[in-house]
Amino acid sequence: MGQEIERKFLVNATQWQQAEKPVGEHYRQGYLLLDPHKTIRVRLTPTKGFLTIKGKTTGATRAEFEYEIPMDEASALLDQFAIAELSKIRYTLTYKDKVWEIDEFLGDNAGLIVAEIELKSEDESFERPVWVSEEVTADARYYNANLTTMPYNKW
Amino acid sequence: MGQEIERKFLVNATQWQQAEKPVGEHYRQGYLLLDPHKTIRVRLTPTKGFLTIKGKTTGATRAEFEYEIPMDEASALLDQFAIAELSKIRYTLTYKDKVWEIDEFLGDNAGLIVAEIELKSEDESFERPVWVSEEVTADARYYNANLTTMPYNKW
Repeated sequence: MGQEIERKFLVNATQWQQAEKPVGEHYRQGYLLLDPHKTIRVRLTPTKGFLTIKGKTTGATRAEFEYEIPMDEASALLDQFAIAELSKIRYTLTYKDKVWEIDEFLGDNAGLIVAEIELKSEDESFERPVWVSEEVTADARYYNANLTTMPYNKW
Repeated sequence: MGQEIERKFLVNATQWQQAEKPVGEHYRQGYLLLDPHKTIRVRLTPTKGFLTIKGKTTGATRAEFEYEIPMDEASALLDQFAIAELSKIRYTLTYKDKVWEIDEFLGDNAGLIVAEIELKSEDESFERPVWVSEEVTADARYYNANLTTMPYNKW
């Protein structure tokens, strides 16, 4: 149980390509439920499966309940129950003592690169890596749930 | 991951009251998602919490994915996200080497007592305790999901 406080930014592709990057991981994720008040997500990474329930976003804050589940079950849940799916390459890196997650989207969202930073409070300060561009925290189009049903190549 | 094969029966209240019973446990459960193809249930018992995803029932068989979760999280998920809830007293007992689960429903479903037996195959034979009455496996009104939204006292 908990809350996540995240801010989200577009990533400048040129700067990002030139940056020193960790190895990325392929994420497959889909939604069992998508409504404005809650989402239920299944995620399959190269080494783990997760089932995650999230509440409505208010500002940069959101209730989140995440459970690790067996990988074969994550795969079966996606196959049997997901309304829609997306996939992406996830990079996780530390910059000035803060953890950033950078997602290079694939498929119908190809061309979109987004970076998120998890914070302890909404007003916590942090330094921006050079590849960070416009903030899109408040733009619902960039929610992964919405990218699943209305992908970037249809905007 | 797995399948559950269950048969469900009404329970004769008089016979059941006279039977030797184990101590019952209060179950609180609600649904985060209710649709004909899948349900997502949160259950809180006196000692555990569960998050359970079930597929469509075909005959007496149903895909089921169940995860134990912390009790405080089960409670919070019910409070924040459940569409509807029900509660019941669950008794679990063994009769002739088979496990039966008997549910005495509470609240808007008070007066309803249902017994389920979990089987290894749809045609597995078993002996019926004296308090077992009419079979209702195929009657969707008795699904807990449906009892939540259309309780027994409204039939």
